Amino acid sequence: MFADRHHGNAMSSRRMRELRELLRELAQDDSVRAVVLRAQEGKSFAVGGDFREMIGLTAGEETDAWTDATADLCVACLEMPKPTVAALDGHVIGIGLLIALACDYRLGSESCSLRMPHFALGLACTFGGYLLERSVGRHVMQDMLMSGEPWSPESSLADGLLHEIVPDRDLARTALKRALRFAAYDLPAFAATKHTLSLPHTQQLRAMQHSTRLRNRADFATGLPRQRMRRILGRE
Amino acid sequence: MFADRHHGNAMSSRRMRELRELLRELAQDDSVRAVVLRAQEGKSFAVGGDFREMIGLTAGEETDAWTDATADLCVACLEMPKPTVAALDGHVIGIGLLIALACDYRLGSESCSLRMPHFALGLACTFGGYLLERSVGRHVMQDMLMSGEPWSPESSLADGLLHEIVPDRDLARTALKRALRFAAYDLPAFAATKHTLSLPHTQQLRAMQHSTRLRNRADFATGLPRQRMRRILGRE
Amino acid sequence: MFADRHHGNAMSSRRMRELRELLRELAQDDSVRAVVLRAQEGKSFAVGGDFREMIGLTAGEETDAWTDATADLCVACLEMPKPTVAALDGHVIGIGLLIALACDYRLGSESCSLRMPHFALGLACTFGGYLLERSVGRHVMQDMLMSGEPWSPESSLADGLLHEIVPDRDLARTALKRALRFAAYDLPAFAATKHTLSLPHTQQLRAMQHSTRLRNRADFATGLPRQRMRRILGRE
Repeated sequence: MFADRHHGNAMSSRRMRELRELLRELAQDDSVRAVVLRAQEGKSFAVGGDFREMIGLTAGEETDAWTDATADLCVACLEMPKPTVAALDGHVIGIGLLIALACDYRLGSESCSLRMPHFALGLACTFGGYLLERSVGRHVMQDMLMSGEPWSPESSLADGLLHEIVPDRDLARTALKRALRFAAYDLPAFAATKHTLSLPHTQQLRAMQHSTRLRNRADFATGLPRQRMRRILGRE
Repeated sequence: MFADRHHGNAMSSRRMRELRELLRELAQDDSVRAVVLRAQEGKSFAVGGDFREMIGLTAGEETDAWTDATADLCVACLEMPKPTVAALDGHVIGIGLLIALACDYRLGSESCSLRMPHFALGLACTFGGYLLERSVGRHVMQDMLMSGEPWSPESSLADGLLHEIVPDRDLARTALKRALRFAAYDLPAFAATKHTLSLPHTQQLRAMQHSTRLRNRADFATGLPRQRMRRILGRE
Repeated sequence: MFADRHHGNAMSSRRMRELRELLRELAQDDSVRAVVLRAQEGKSFAVGGDFREMIGLTAGEETDAWTDATADLCVACLEMPKPTVAALDGHVIGIGLLIALACDYRLGSESCSLRMPHFALGLACTFGGYLLERSVGRHVMQDMLMSGEPWSPESSLADGLLHEIVPDRDLARTALKRALRFAAYDLPAFAATKHTLSLPHTQQLRAMQHSTRLRNRADFATGLPRQRMRRILGRE
C-alpha cells in the first residue's frame, strides 16, 4: 500500500531548495561517485508539491520563488555530473516525476504509481510536459497530461518512464547495486556525455521559466487550484 | 469496411482552409471548451490530399497555395488553445494523419488505417515526417515513410500513433466522453502548457515551409505524381 | 555464433574515411538508387572502433582525426541523398551502431547484438548518445549507455533500434528486397525529405564535435581506455 500524503515527501519550495543544495554538495564531494534518490522506507518517493504551501500561493513573488525552485531542481538533476539513480516507490507525482525523469536511471517498485495531475488542479505543466516529451515521447506526454491518471509500474515500463521494475522489498538493494555499477565508470567521460546530452534540455527549461512564472501567478490568482487542493485535502 | 475514396474526405486546399477557419472560430467562441475532430458516420477521417485538385498542380503559384494550406492547417491545430480529440475511422492518410498528430488526443476505431504514402506518389513528406518524428520517434517515422504501408489500429497503438482503440460503434461516443473530461480543465492553464510545448514544432514547420514550396513545385513539374495518382484513380 | 573481433570489421579511422568516401561516390553515381550497408558473409556488421588503433591514441592530433572521422561518417550517412538500408548481423557496437542509426531502415538478423559500451571503456559517448536519443528516445539512450550491455534482436525491435528481424540466412536477400523497393521512389522527393529531417541532427552533431575532440583527448590521456582495451584484447 502507498504511504499517505502526509508521510509521502510533499515537495515544498524549501524542500526543493534543500535537495538542490544537497545535489550541489554531492557533486563537489570527491568521495561520491554515484547517487541514489529514494524515499525513506515506507514513504512515497514524492507526492508532488506541498498543498499546504501551495494553498497560500497568490499572484505574488512567493509564487515566482516556487516556480524557480521547481526549475532549479530539475536543472540541478540534469546537470549533476555523477550518475543518478531514482528508486521509485509509492506515489511519484508532479515534481516527483520530474525529478525521476531528470535522473539517469529509474527503477520502480511493484507498488509505484506515476502521475502528472496538473490540469485537474488548474495548473500549467510546462516543465513536466517538456521533460516527458523529451524523455518518453510526445504521445506519452499527451496521454499523461490529458488523462491526469496514475500510471502502473507495467505501463510505466512499457512507456519508458521506468527502466526496470523490482519487487518492493528489493528496491533499495537493487538501486544501490545499479549505482555501484555506474560508480565504476570513469567520471569525466560520463559527466561530459551527460552535460552534452542534457544541455539542450536545461536551455529549453530555462527558456520557458519566465512565461511559466507569469502563468503560475495567473493560475494561483484565480483561486481555482486552492479550491481543488482543499477538496483533495478534505477527503484525506 | 472503409468508405470509398470519393466518400472519404479528400482534403482539397479549399477544405483545408475551411477547416483552419473553423478552428479559428472555435478558438474564439467562449462557449466551446473542447473540440472533437471526426468524419461523418460511415466516412473515412481523411483520405489525404484531393487527387482531383493535385492532378492539376504544376510548378506555379497554385502549388504554393496548396503547400501553404497544409502548413497553415497543421499550425492551426497545434496552436488551438483548447483540447482537441481526433476520432479516427477508416482511412487516415497523409494530411489526415498530420491533422491527427497535431491533436492532443487520438482515438482510433477498430477499422482505422493510418498511412503516409508520399514517396510512392513521388512527393516529399517534410511536414508529415517532422510531426511523426517528434510525436512518435524517428524510428517510426522512418518505418512509415520508407514502407508507405498502412498501419493497423494495433500497430498504431503500439507505436504511439493512437492513444486508445475503441469498437467502431463506440468511436463518436467515446471521443465525446474524452472531450467532456478535458473540457472540465481550466483553459488558460491548459492553453499555456500546449502553447509552450507546441512552439518549437510550429517554428520548425514554418522554417521548412519555404523549401517545401520549392520542392513541391519541382515534384509536380515532373508529371510523376500526376501519373501515379491517375493510375490509382483508374483502379477505383 | 558471432564472428570474432578480428574478423568483424573493426572501424579504424582509415576505414571510416574510406566508407565516407565510398558513400560520396555512391551519392554521385546516377546508376545507384539505393544502398545496402552490410558486412561480408559470416562477419559482424561492425565491432566498434579498432582497438589496435585506439590503444595508440594520446592527447594529440591523431585523436582529433579519430573524433573527426567518426563525426564525418555519421554526417555522411545522414546526408546521403539516397535510401540506405543497414543489414545488421553479429556485433553492432559503438560506431557500428551509430552508422546503423544514421541509415533510413535497419534490418537485424536473429544473431545480431547491438551495444554502446563507451562508459565501461572510459570513453565519452556524445555522438552515439545524441543519435540514440533522437532515434529511439532518451529513455532507451539512458538504458543502453548506463548498462553498456548488448541488446538482443527482440529488445532492439521493441526499442525501435531495428525495424524488422529476419532469419540469418535471409538477411542479405531481404535487405536487397527492401532496397529495391526504396529504389523505385522518386529520388529528389526522397532526398529533400531526408535532408530536411536530418538537418537538425547533422547541425547538432557538428555543434558537439569540438567539445568531443577535447574530451577524447583528455580521456585517452588518462591511459584508462588503453588499459581496459588491453584487458579485453588479452581475453580474446
